Amino acid sequence: MKMNAYERLLQKSREIVILSSATAVLGWDFETYMPPKGMNLRSEQGALLQRILHQLKTDPENAEIIKAIQSGHKHYDAVQERNIYLFKKEYEEATRLPESLVSDIAKQSTIAVTAWKKAKSKKDWSLFKPELMKTIELHKKRAELLMEVKGAKTLYDAMIDDFEPGMTQDVITKVFDELKAGLIPLTKKCTDASSSLDTSYLSRPVPIEVQRKMAFDIAKFLDYDITSENAGGRIDETEHPFTTGYYDDVRVTVHYHENNVASALYALLHEIGHALYEQNLNPEWKYQPIGEAASMGIHESMSRFVENIVGRTEEFWKFYFPKLNQITSNKFADIDLMDFIRSMNIVKPSKIRIEADEVTYSLHVIIRFEIERDLMADRIEVSELPQIWNEKYEKYLGVEIENDSEGVMQDTHWASGLIGYFPSYALGNVYDGMWLEKINSDIPNWRENISQGDFLTVKNWLVENIHRKARLYEPNELAMKLTGKQLTAKPFIEYLNDKYSRLFGL
Amino acid sequence: MKMNAYERLLQKSREIVILSSATAVLGWDFETYMPPKGMNLRSEQGALLQRILHQLKTDPENAEIIKAIQSGHKHYDAVQERNIYLFKKEYEEATRLPESLVSDIAKQSTIAVTAWKKAKSKKDWSLFKPELMKTIELHKKRAELLMEVKGAKTLYDAMIDDFEPGMTQDVITKVFDELKAGLIPLTKKCTDASSSLDTSYLSRPVPIEVQRKMAFDIAKFLDYDITSENAGGRIDETEHPFTTGYYDDVRVTVHYHENNVASALYALLHEIGHALYEQNLNPEWKYQPIGEAASMGIHESMSRFVENIVGRTEEFWKFYFPKLNQITSNKFADIDLMDFIRSMNIVKPSKIRIEADEVTYSLHVIIRFEIERDLMADRIEVSELPQIWNEKYEKYLGVEIENDSEGVMQDTHWASGLIGYFPSYALGNVYDGMWLEKINSDIPNWRENISQGDFLTVKNWLVENIHRKARLYEPNELAMKLTGKQLTAKPFIEYLNDKYSRLFGL
Repeated sequence: MKMNAYERLLQKSREIVILSSATAVLGWDFETYMPPKGMNLRSEQGALLQRILHQLKTDPENAEIIKAIQSGHKHYDAVQERNIYLFKKEYEEATRLPESLVSDIAKQSTIAVTAWKKAKSKKDWSLFKPELMKTIELHKKRAELLMEVKGAKTLYDAMIDDFEPGMTQDVITKVFDELKAGLIPLTKKCTDASSSLDTSYLSRPVPIEVQRKMAFDIAKFLDYDITSENAGGRIDETEHPFTTGYYDDVRVTVHYHENNVASALYALLHEIGHALYEQNLNPEWKYQPIGEAASMGIHESMSRFVENIVGRTEEFWKFYFPKLNQITSNKFADIDLMDFIRSMNIVKPSKIRIEADEVTYSLHVIIRFEIERDLMADRIEVSELPQIWNEKYEKYLGVEIENDSEGVMQDTHWASGLIGYFPSYALGNVYDGMWLEKINSDIPNWRENISQGDFLTVKNWLVENIHRKARLYEPNELAMKLTGKQLTAKPFIEYLNDKYSRLFGL
Repeated sequence: MKMNAYERLLQKSREIVILSSATAVLGWDFETYMPPKGMNLRSEQGALLQRILHQLKTDPENAEIIKAIQSGHKHYDAVQERNIYLFKKEYEEATRLPESLVSDIAKQSTIAVTAWKKAKSKKDWSLFKPELMKTIELHKKRAELLMEVKGAKTLYDAMIDDFEPGMTQDVITKVFDELKAGLIPLTKKCTDASSSLDTSYLSRPVPIEVQRKMAFDIAKFLDYDITSENAGGRIDETEHPFTTGYYDDVRVTVHYHENNVASALYALLHEIGHALYEQNLNPEWKYQPIGEAASMGIHESMSRFVENIVGRTEEFWKFYFPKLNQITSNKFADIDLMDFIRSMNIVKPSKIRIEADEVTYSLHVIIRFEIERDLMADRIEVSELPQIWNEKYEKYLGVEIENDSEGVMQDTHWASGLIGYFPSYALGNVYDGMWLEKINSDIPNWRENISQGDFLTVKNWLVENIHRKARLYEPNELAMKLTGKQLTAKPFIEYLNDKYSRLFGL
């Protein structure tokens, strides 16, 4: 039976998707259980699979398929059109990059990460600077080659498009300016209001075994199945929490700190938020280009919705505080519930992004975005980064950076070559504000359900309105379809103002 | 820089080996940690990787490389010649099989295993018989296509060659007849001598946690590194123990039974015996065709050497008995050491191969070999199998089979299409006898070292004489080079006679 062009497209995609998912399992194993000596073999496996994946994506047959589809007179529905668009975009991007550049970028990434680690541990920016410059040059070259295919107007737009398709630095600048205008004064108010709060009890030791039980609780609450005979998830332990997988096999990891039970709890809420998204993409689109997450920003909106919008509410803690005391032998039974909830929402400007609270987090991200944007447009130079970084931290967060290891060198992203990724984190918050406004109107009593331990109402809403949409729309378009609004930070700012007024009587 | 033909051969092999090793990681994950719902995705991943592997093996460029090497006038050393031979053999075998047959065999394997599971649980041979017949037909067709390339004289020889290259049913028949002639009377004597032994204490419960500590002990004793920063191994838990991996990442699994501590202990000795082999193949040959185990029989000889020849000696228990009592809070402190050692060597003919002792084990295997051999030569028919099986069990082991689930349907091998694999198990014992004779002469005091907890002397001998040889020789040739003898069961029979005389005063 001869397949038509569209069927061939689906078959080709299927192979790409399945091979990617196999590669993800190797990545998971690398982080969890691989014996340390296996490192080189794993690199070889990874590089080979990437090469095969690249061959699949650039197969000349793909061009024939696209041509046959475009020259035919068959009518395609919206889903099929989207699959064709995504398949073609992937093919064009992959073929546009010479293998030598791809390989140079991969090698430079290893070199730069090694230099970054050393520079960070020695607090010596000069050790990292030359490698960062080379990394940036390579990524600029890459972006230049992709600009046309991506329809990007600037190099940085082409970089952003890798993570947030269709998004531009102009749109982000506008929204982040809104965000900044709201967050800077709010940070000041919240910091003052929450500074007198005693949160020392949060470091009371909770044995890792008990925290593992808590992980089961959280998974059950979120309807993330890790125990049944048909379970599609699992929770393992790694240095840094992450989520990986595809539809029926999506795994999260967590790191338990005996003296910081909240850390694992919020990491679990966050990662399972990611996992639910991957598990609940439209099953009809499995193995198709469209059957993927819409963007990193939308992904982050899903994890941060569960972590913050749900997990830092009064209602979540009304439900979970008694349970937490139950499994921890009343470790926090002497603490007033409202005080406990406040301590989960404390605002304290800090130097380190990954330790930031819900209010200041976006400001950390905005600093990185502004630097990337200006760097890619040659408005600033790499050598100026430490100074600019420190000035922005002083200006936006009122924080004084003492050395570059806690400053410009704190994140691994730039060393790894992830330029254009940072905005996703704060876009996640922006999207969340928009989702929240809509869910408040669709399901006015959703918070009450949470206080009764029922997350399903919220989950079903997320599944129906976001997860199931998968990659049918560009992220901005998805937000517009769902909320009827252009991207705006206003709902997120309002949400924070409301919450903090209520909690701290601002 | 242009590569010469031999360099191209090494590069092609490298890809095949690395992709196989990646596939093995997915197999390990499937057995250990994969969420159950991930089953279908994993099958898809496995099938795709097999397809890609097949493409790599049958790449027309491989034929060009072989031709260029053969038509050139370059001199190759023994290692290079062997690499060329193995590369060519793999290419010719892979190209000889039509894709449709490979795919039919894979599908039939799934169908037959499913039917076998059902038939076994219902004790109904008639449910399995038709599927077994189809499986055999497909494998006969496959063997027929491979006979020429493999230089096999019979269909069954072609099947054996998959697992024991160069071995034939005639050689095996001769050696197994020797083995049978020695083992049948020995079984009788040992059974009588050990029948009065009370071994009920072996079922004393030892908590799984304690058995996990024992696993660390055993790994340490065997120099199987699972703990250091450069560890290349690990121990996980699965239904059935197995070993998988490549050089620097070789993992074993075990199943702990609270009421049978000896089960996990011997499974660990066995699997780590396999693992040491894979870890200690010649590192210079990594990623080359020659850098693999010599055969399944040699592999089995490595696992059974550690399990039986080392692990069932008086000397091993002189070393480990006090330690076992230490970690089990003196669970067996009231047992006389010699009685304990005897109980580790008890002989009792049984119906089930995987529960068999060191003496009767080979008889179980010989029964399967004789049936396979005669079946492939059309001297017997599938419908006769239950009857023939039961007669042989009666004749060789004096055991009466009551139903086909504990008889002809006990193993999964035939359902999976593993025809020609069984002989490897008993060949492992035969090789072990030959290794033992040689090590006794090379290192007369090796047993004394074991009693002092020093396995390294033995390990180094195995590494130097067998592991490091990897696939330089065909298995039979390896045995000849090392011992100067043709394959013979005599040393194994002598070893058993000696041991059992000493232990039970036969």
